[in-house]
Amino acid sequence: MGVNSNRVEDFSSHETALRINTEAVMPPMIHSVCPPPQQTTLQKLKLRLGEIFFPDDPLYRFKNQTLSKKLVLGLQLLFPIFQWGPEYSLKLFRSDIISGLTIASLAIPQGISYAKLANLPPIVGLYSSFVPPLIYSILGSSRHLGVGPVSIASLVMGSMLSEAVSPTEDQILYLKLAFTATFFAGVFQASLGLLRLGFVIDFLSKATLVGFMAGAAIIVSLQQLKGLLGIVHFTSKMQFVPVMSLFSTTEMSGPGKPLLLASSMKKPKLFWVSAAAPLTSVIISTLLVFCLKSKIHGVSIIGHLPKGLNPPSANMLYFNGSYLAVAIKTGIVTGILSLTEGIAVGRTFAALKNYQVDGNKEMMAIGLMNVAGSCSSCYVTTGSFSRSAVNYNAGAQTALSNIVMASAVLVTVLFLMPLFYYTPNVILAAIIITAVIGLIDYQAAYQLWKVDKLDFLACLCSFFGVLFISVPLGLAIAVGVSVLKILLHVTRPNTVVMGNIPGTQIYQSLSRYREALRVPSFLMLAIESPIYFANSTYLQERILRWVREEEERIKANNGSALKCIILDMTAVTAIDTSGIELLCELRKMMEKRSLQLVLTNPVGSVMEKLQQSKVLESFGLNGLYLTVEEAIADISALWKSQP
Amino acid sequence: MGVNSNRVEDFSSHETALRINTEAVMPPMIHSVCPPPQQTTLQKLKLRLGEIFFPDDPLYRFKNQTLSKKLVLGLQLLFPIFQWGPEYSLKLFRSDIISGLTIASLAIPQGISYAKLANLPPIVGLYSSFVPPLIYSILGSSRHLGVGPVSIASLVMGSMLSEAVSPTEDQILYLKLAFTATFFAGVFQASLGLLRLGFVIDFLSKATLVGFMAGAAIIVSLQQLKGLLGIVHFTSKMQFVPVMSLFSTTEMSGPGKPLLLASSMKKPKLFWVSAAAPLTSVIISTLLVFCLKSKIHGVSIIGHLPKGLNPPSANMLYFNGSYLAVAIKTGIVTGILSLTEGIAVGRTFAALKNYQVDGNKEMMAIGLMNVAGSCSSCYVTTGSFSRSAVNYNAGAQTALSNIVMASAVLVTVLFLMPLFYYTPNVILAAIIITAVIGLIDYQAAYQLWKVDKLDFLACLCSFFGVLFISVPLGLAIAVGVSVLKILLHVTRPNTVVMGNIPGTQIYQSLSRYREALRVPSFLMLAIESPIYFANSTYLQERILRWVREEEERIKANNGSALKCIILDMTAVTAIDTSGIELLCELRKMMEKRSLQLVLTNPVGSVMEKLQQSKVLESFGLNGLYLTVEEAIADISALWKSQP
Repeated sequence: MGVNSNRVEDFSSHETALRINTEAVMPPMIHSVCPPPQQTTLQKLKLRLGEIFFPDDPLYRFKNQTLSKKLVLGLQLLFPIFQWGPEYSLKLFRSDIISGLTIASLAIPQGISYAKLANLPPIVGLYSSFVPPLIYSILGSSRHLGVGPVSIASLVMGSMLSEAVSPTEDQILYLKLAFTATFFAGVFQASLGLLRLGFVIDFLSKATLVGFMAGAAIIVSLQQLKGLLGIVHFTSKMQFVPVMSLFSTTEMSGPGKPLLLASSMKKPKLFWVSAAAPLTSVIISTLLVFCLKSKIHGVSIIGHLPKGLNPPSANMLYFNGSYLAVAIKTGIVTGILSLTEGIAVGRTFAALKNYQVDGNKEMMAIGLMNVAGSCSSCYVTTGSFSRSAVNYNAGAQTALSNIVMASAVLVTVLFLMPLFYYTPNVILAAIIITAVIGLIDYQAAYQLWKVDKLDFLACLCSFFGVLFISVPLGLAIAVGVSVLKILLHVTRPNTVVMGNIPGTQIYQSLSRYREALRVPSFLMLAIESPIYFANSTYLQERILRWVREEEERIKANNGSALKCIILDMTAVTAIDTSGIELLCELRKMMEKRSLQLVLTNPVGSVMEKLQQSKVLESFGLNGLYLTVEEAIADISALWKSQP
Repeated sequence: MGVNSNRVEDFSSHETALRINTEAVMPPMIHSVCPPPQQTTLQKLKLRLGEIFFPDDPLYRFKNQTLSKKLVLGLQLLFPIFQWGPEYSLKLFRSDIISGLTIASLAIPQGISYAKLANLPPIVGLYSSFVPPLIYSILGSSRHLGVGPVSIASLVMGSMLSEAVSPTEDQILYLKLAFTATFFAGVFQASLGLLRLGFVIDFLSKATLVGFMAGAAIIVSLQQLKGLLGIVHFTSKMQFVPVMSLFSTTEMSGPGKPLLLASSMKKPKLFWVSAAAPLTSVIISTLLVFCLKSKIHGVSIIGHLPKGLNPPSANMLYFNGSYLAVAIKTGIVTGILSLTEGIAVGRTFAALKNYQVDGNKEMMAIGLMNVAGSCSSCYVTTGSFSRSAVNYNAGAQTALSNIVMASAVLVTVLFLMPLFYYTPNVILAAIIITAVIGLIDYQAAYQLWKVDKLDFLACLCSFFGVLFISVPLGLAIAVGVSVLKILLHVTRPNTVVMGNIPGTQIYQSLSRYREALRVPSFLMLAIESPIYFANSTYLQERILRWVREEEERIKANNGSALKCIILDMTAVTAIDTSGIELLCELRKMMEKRSLQLVLTNPVGSVMEKLQQSKVLESFGLNGLYLTVEEAIADISALWKSQP
């Protein structure tokens, strides 16, 4: 307790010094707290909505420009391809063509298997890798997104539609419903973007994404492991092969392995190895299987597929009848799911390369490509996690890789189908696994643990949720944890007792700054949070406890009695009616104990509400100051003149 | 633009003055930013959990006390009755006995009708007005809560249980399930309190409660209007009376009307009138109906009820068998509903009389009274809205009014049943309506509209939700709106460009303080929110826009080029990993533009995270200052020495 009493003594000399300082050197000028400029409700609403929906002031480039320039800028805004197109170089093209061809080599088996998941004919999966990527490359703002059908949306569409219509007995109706659902998914996604609700995706934090990537990587790997072990999907010939024979089969499918290892041990310097590895693996393994086809048996290969271009399907959209509700519901559900995946994946790779993905633009791009897809025999597509990972790893630089992929798929669908006949499924599985395993970011997770335990918890929730429950639910839980963290911070805000740093006008936390000293008869509290209904009860209890503890401390040290509580409102960035009531009640409670309650430095919006609610009048002339320093100087002077 | 260039010129002279000031009068002392004291994760967790679950430091009274004193304090903590009991006076008793008797006169018809809603024998409703109020008066912390069965929980219990078991065909099993559901409701409620999850109810804001009260008042009034119009509930004699004859009946039930008017026009000064009115109305109207019974017909009266005390029902609890799941589910649902109503009502009246209701204590009190009730033939009870309103209006002062009510109900059940035979239902309906209509608080709603539009929206949601959907859903929507408001504030925080108030070290918003001036070559931004994943994208865009706009302004005014961005972190009360990344990225982006990024005055928790993430190292020596003033002085000096 010796330290404390020393402090008090220390201080009294300091206080004298301070008074001399303020009175001799500077005039004891008191600045009044200004309210923000007067605005009508409509003006405030306009400003607020502007901040919510157009924080980036998207049209600022158009100011003071000639009409032709405005036109160019407008085109660039609508079609990001005009932004990067003019600066496109041969070097970029080399990277894009390799990555485009690589993902094209994935698009074929993926399209087939995911279409099967959705109970659709395999060729629909291939069609879906042609039209949507073309549209996306013109409209999308991500440079690394590999567009195509995804497992989750395929699975959900398959199960939701087949509950209403049998895909085997009523094939045509089922196909119609699938295209209609795709249409509504697109309309739903595009309208979210049009309404500028892209900020919804801001709630997917980095922590959530680290967990999501790791969980999704494991799921995709496990799915692909089936292929790696040689389990046959596309021919029924092998259906009854006993489990034990799988292992011998796996040994047969050896050619992929060394390449897989080579590509998984890639270094950033060895760009060409990592970029060329998947495609080379495909070519070599296909050739090997083709040459050895008479000697080895049981290797799972892609096999025969029909040829032909996307037929138009706008006439198959189904806008009336008893199944319309099912189609709309399926469309909205798969639309949300695919949007979440697409934007999460887009943001992930944008973060890795330090560029921004505009959520609203992405939603519109994905939506429009699905609307276009539904008219050209495609089902729901989005940014695919595995395809984007391969695209990124193969060195994609712009959305052109999607055009390359689409062209490659087109050529394949038209002419090259027979060449892929002998591609072993195992090599495709290996490429996917290699790509996604690299995205499990232990170090980021460790950094989260070190810096922010609750972020780490969100990461874990996202990881285990995605792994053991489902992708959307896992993401939802992680977002829930993140939001809970915000609410927890608001519900239990920090309150800090402040002291003066001698010789300055700085007031800082006593517990952090050892040189800071208490000011006798004053208790200075900083509230570090908005004051809301959710914390007004807590803050009242906490402030009363600080006052009680301060009084006990003074009693123990025989200090001068507490006379004034200063609430520093600098960090109280908002207040609501419950918060205003708290201030009123606190003032009354303090008055009953003969303590004065003073507020310092309320921010604009708080000041406005204090004025509107007339609560300032009850605080009187000596109840509001601009700084803690001025409050102490003025109130001390007042006490001297009225002892 | 003239004003702006004037400002800049103005400033240059001010800057010289300032430099002279800092260099001549005060030494240019730079204070370093201290991190908070070192703590282990466990210590931090302990502190954090303490703040979350025990912000009021509930055991502080026990410190430095003798054992016997500790015992007394412990008793008071567990049983609030020991707090107010010793100071109880005859004056309080007079108020409590009147209000107790008044609510007792309500308890009888309410008990009967609500028990019918739950498909239970009418007498169970009366039992439920005897044991639970006794328990609550010992354990509860609200002084105005009138305890008894409530319509919502009764309705839900009736519909959920009768889905599983027919209340008419299997009466005993149905009764068993009702008691078992009550038992589980109590256990659930008490365990919420034991786990100190009482802060959950902090999310019911004043705005929500204003709307809830108004909506509930209208619902209860509409329910009671049936009684007021004389529709018969308890005798089947009148079932077929044509609608038109209702009006003649209503005329017959005249005696209540003048009293109803008298009591509805109550003034706070006319305490006795408002307190005595309901009971007097009951007595007079009963006598009138009794005297005139041979002359008038068709007046709906309470009629005959069986006599007897609560029989024990612990042996009727049902802990195995196929219906256990239904009982548990019903218990949890009715438990949540009745807890929400009870605590909302308790908080409402506590706010009106300026005292605190401890959420955790309330949950335990309500939970234990339901557990006790389930063993004494009672079904789910809680703080009833209508009963509490009457209790409050009749002048209740302490929980003793519940004991008075329970005793009155006991005496009634045992002996006085025949006296209430002739009480007209209409007078009871009139009492309830008068009580609840007074709780529709137009003025509070208008005040909400004036001060905070979003609070008003929450109030409206709560009002219309309760009125047109259901009480729990209405409350849930209102809480959702309130939470959304918090999230909106976090998602789109305020950023303010600051200037210096000449002659001081004060930096304030340029838009609010006309005397504040820009400092040439510096852009000072205050961020008024924690930096989270939810706003880091927005903040990045917004800060870049401020920089862009500042550069455009300087260009237009031919001012000195922007060299340094100062981010004032005083109001950034928390940061997460996304926020830290934002700072890193901003620093890099500014560096590319040859701009220096400087942080000032990060609070304790932010400073800690900046250190842990090693981000401070990248900011270097001139990247962190305690105040804006010191940052400007030091960096300006640096520029001078290295031109």
